[in-house]
Amino acid sequence: LIKSTSNFTSNFKFNFFRGSITVHTMSEDYLEKLYKIIDQKRGTYFDVLKEAVSIRSETGDQSETMKIISWAETKLRQLGAATTLQDVGAIIVDGKKFKLPPVLIADIKSDASKTTLLVYGHLDVRPTNASKGSIVSTEDYNLVEENGVLFGKGVTDSKGPLLCWFNAIEAFREHGSELPVNLRFVIEAMKESGSFGLMEYISNNKGYLFKNVSYICISDSTCLFTTKPVITFGGRGCCRFTITVEGGKSDLHSGVHGGMVSEPMTDLVSLLCNLTNNKGEILVPNFRDNVEEVTPDEEKAYHRLSFDVSAFKSATGIEKLLHKEDKKRLLMHRSRFPSLSIHGIDTGDSEEDAIPAKVTASFTIRIVPNQTPQEVFHKVQVYLMYIFNKSQSPNRMTIEMPVAIPPWVAKPNDANYKSASKAIQRVYKQEPDLIREGSSIPIVSELQAISGKSVLLLPVGSSEHSILKNRDRIDVKTFMDGTKVVSTYMYELSLQKKVK
Amino acid sequence: LIKSTSNFTSNFKFNFFRGSITVHTMSEDYLEKLYKIIDQKRGTYFDVLKEAVSIRSETGDQSETMKIISWAETKLRQLGAATTLQDVGAIIVDGKKFKLPPVLIADIKSDASKTTLLVYGHLDVRPTNASKGSIVSTEDYNLVEENGVLFGKGVTDSKGPLLCWFNAIEAFREHGSELPVNLRFVIEAMKESGSFGLMEYISNNKGYLFKNVSYICISDSTCLFTTKPVITFGGRGCCRFTITVEGGKSDLHSGVHGGMVSEPMTDLVSLLCNLTNNKGEILVPNFRDNVEEVTPDEEKAYHRLSFDVSAFKSATGIEKLLHKEDKKRLLMHRSRFPSLSIHGIDTGDSEEDAIPAKVTASFTIRIVPNQTPQEVFHKVQVYLMYIFNKSQSPNRMTIEMPVAIPPWVAKPNDANYKSASKAIQRVYKQEPDLIREGSSIPIVSELQAISGKSVLLLPVGSSEHSILKNRDRIDVKTFMDGTKVVSTYMYELSLQKKVK
Repeated sequence: LIKSTSNFTSNFKFNFFRGSITVHTMSEDYLEKLYKIIDQKRGTYFDVLKEAVSIRSETGDQSETMKIISWAETKLRQLGAATTLQDVGAIIVDGKKFKLPPVLIADIKSDASKTTLLVYGHLDVRPTNASKGSIVSTEDYNLVEENGVLFGKGVTDSKGPLLCWFNAIEAFREHGSELPVNLRFVIEAMKESGSFGLMEYISNNKGYLFKNVSYICISDSTCLFTTKPVITFGGRGCCRFTITVEGGKSDLHSGVHGGMVSEPMTDLVSLLCNLTNNKGEILVPNFRDNVEEVTPDEEKAYHRLSFDVSAFKSATGIEKLLHKEDKKRLLMHRSRFPSLSIHGIDTGDSEEDAIPAKVTASFTIRIVPNQTPQEVFHKVQVYLMYIFNKSQSPNRMTIEMPVAIPPWVAKPNDANYKSASKAIQRVYKQEPDLIREGSSIPIVSELQAISGKSVLLLPVGSSEHSILKNRDRIDVKTFMDGTKVVSTYMYELSLQKKVK
Repeated sequence: LIKSTSNFTSNFKFNFFRGSITVHTMSEDYLEKLYKIIDQKRGTYFDVLKEAVSIRSETGDQSETMKIISWAETKLRQLGAATTLQDVGAIIVDGKKFKLPPVLIADIKSDASKTTLLVYGHLDVRPTNASKGSIVSTEDYNLVEENGVLFGKGVTDSKGPLLCWFNAIEAFREHGSELPVNLRFVIEAMKESGSFGLMEYISNNKGYLFKNVSYICISDSTCLFTTKPVITFGGRGCCRFTITVEGGKSDLHSGVHGGMVSEPMTDLVSLLCNLTNNKGEILVPNFRDNVEEVTPDEEKAYHRLSFDVSAFKSATGIEKLLHKEDKKRLLMHRSRFPSLSIHGIDTGDSEEDAIPAKVTASFTIRIVPNQTPQEVFHKVQVYLMYIFNKSQSPNRMTIEMPVAIPPWVAKPNDANYKSASKAIQRVYKQEPDLIREGSSIPIVSELQAISGKSVLLLPVGSSEHSILKNRDRIDVKTFMDGTKVVSTYMYELSLQKKVK
């Protein structure tokens, strides 16, 4: 059981940047010069990334996550930031108190008249999961370059993407320019454990945190693209459900007792059957009442998106997709319409010939604007209770929703998205696709809900083959281009009309 | 993968019993004297059981199972048996050849004019399953007596019950009497691994094995009773099914892909839904066509049986049983009508938010006379294929039946059953209930089918609290009464008219 006990204290440290500052006219030349500096600094960037990778900041490792936060604080202070470490309390794990690593807040103030951008990043890495066939190795924490690829734990998720920002700040400095925007970093080291402490902290300190902030940018591996550049402007929400049906105190035997009792598994299967069909329809009454209508603009946008249906089929080995394999409808159904997937049934440690006494199914409903987890839970609960009661089962049913993440969608034409789009176009010479993602990105949903600001997921580059199970990797080009995209994005933002 | 490679050789050894033999008039006095001898031999019986328990004959342990078979052969030769060890070949387990322990055939011939009884027993024990919380301990193999209970691995399943026969032979000897019947033992040490080799051996040698045999008696722990003595004269068959539904090559993500594909789990749940309902009915068309009609005699017999519905409910914690909780119908439905239980769904090592690519459900149908596994498989297959095809799923379905055990039922009024019933009544002073068991006892089904003889499961005594997960135990009284029941059963058999 995990409980959150919060105990906020602040520990302010200041270290103003006092380098020489000259004002440049923003121009193509200006960016070309910046890109040249970035290319020249390659060696330094690698050294810094090597340092970051060498810290074994596996999520949940108290001392190593603390160490990576301290390391980032030192780096940012060297770059001229005013930093504070925010104590976000402790949690109780298996009866033991676990002190959470602090959240690092770092401000690099360029000019009060400029736009302020809040950048979220995380520096903890996923623990190596030996059970999934991964290899735990000291080498994982030693950054190496092989044939244009950087290998090392966390290079993609997400030390590399965050360091692109550090690199960009340094590049502007070398360039002799002021930063185009004011930056406020919010950096945590608990993300892979569910960002414990962070959301409560942000929620309780939103007045201070979002003061003067115009835009928010998320620096995380979730925003890597594959072939054509993309910018994600929405994600579905996630309602994870469990249904438990319980009969007697313990398992019975299918031979000795089969035929005497109404089996919990029969009830459960019958409930699951009523949730969805093999056309992908959700059978919960009035389920789509609050789903936004598709606008003509959306129709056009989905029509333009690139998606190779037959390549997807041959990659997955699926013989026939839903929706008559129509590209537009497929993309809509994976991103802007809800879907329901049954994951499995847990029978505890039942023997293979048992009548399990207690069975738990888990399924997920991906929800979309304007659905809310509360509304969806209510509809599912009422529906399943109706079916269960009608069946006159002597067993007991429980419905729970352990995960509830609201959907999010941004305005892809606002200044934040326009700037990102232009930055990508400059660096990749290709206009990015604006897409909505089918999966859920809790940090975006939550930051958008708490701040009310435009939240952007900035892709740092191509992820072709970049996330492998056994060895984290990032292409050198991806890493270098990421720094250029970040720099250009800041530059483009500064050209937009300032909003509050 | 397990393959059977058979290579039969015979290794005959003879050792005739040459003790002094006198003929007694069978009488109450005769039995009372026998019981007294049995009570006096208690110490010797314990010593022999201690020897048997000390051999760590875990099923699959080549040298220890060989050792227990040799031990039993020596014991039986000392008791006057002519013994042979039957080589039943080898099996291939994980690519390695595993030589099966031989089957021990032992004949104690009293008089050619007497009835011959074949006794089946096994001497391998279940391996201690550490994963189920059992304790592996040297003490398990050291027989100890504590407060009237004998503790030691295999005392109940089934070294104790088989040794009751050895004890009985010795008791008749001490008594100065001929054995009332001729005995032929068939003893194996592979039972807990599925009796590999035995059935093929019996099938190939039935002419020799069953020559002159009138009756068969099974000595195993499955025939222990709880409170009132019972004799089991039938058991349901068992058809274990698996249904596998497969979509693409590997799992998809419910967020990223949910809504694009027809999910295998949805198909599987819908198939399961069509198999049974929460009234315990099997929905496969024409399923009960070959189920025997209930006769008026059966109605009366089930009416007489003792079964405490409310005690069962409170013991299991089940709020309401099926069939309006009518005792007679409940007992019929757990033993003489078929039932269907769904055990669970295997999703491999899918992540908790996955759309599993391959899902396998397992369920068991318990079948009854005159159903056959072949007929049931055919009906289930045709029905599920019809439903699946109608659903127009793009996925692939496979149906398999890895376990197929036919039902069995004996004539509870034949000489074999009458003798057992009288023996129990003499020892326990209570007439036993004649019942049919809901679970499957493969050895009985198979011996009955191959031999065409009357097969009896002889209960060696009360099993109240006698099978615990962590420590095998048998009450001293159960063990001693078992020897008396076995002796009396032989005596009663000898009074019956001889059949072939």
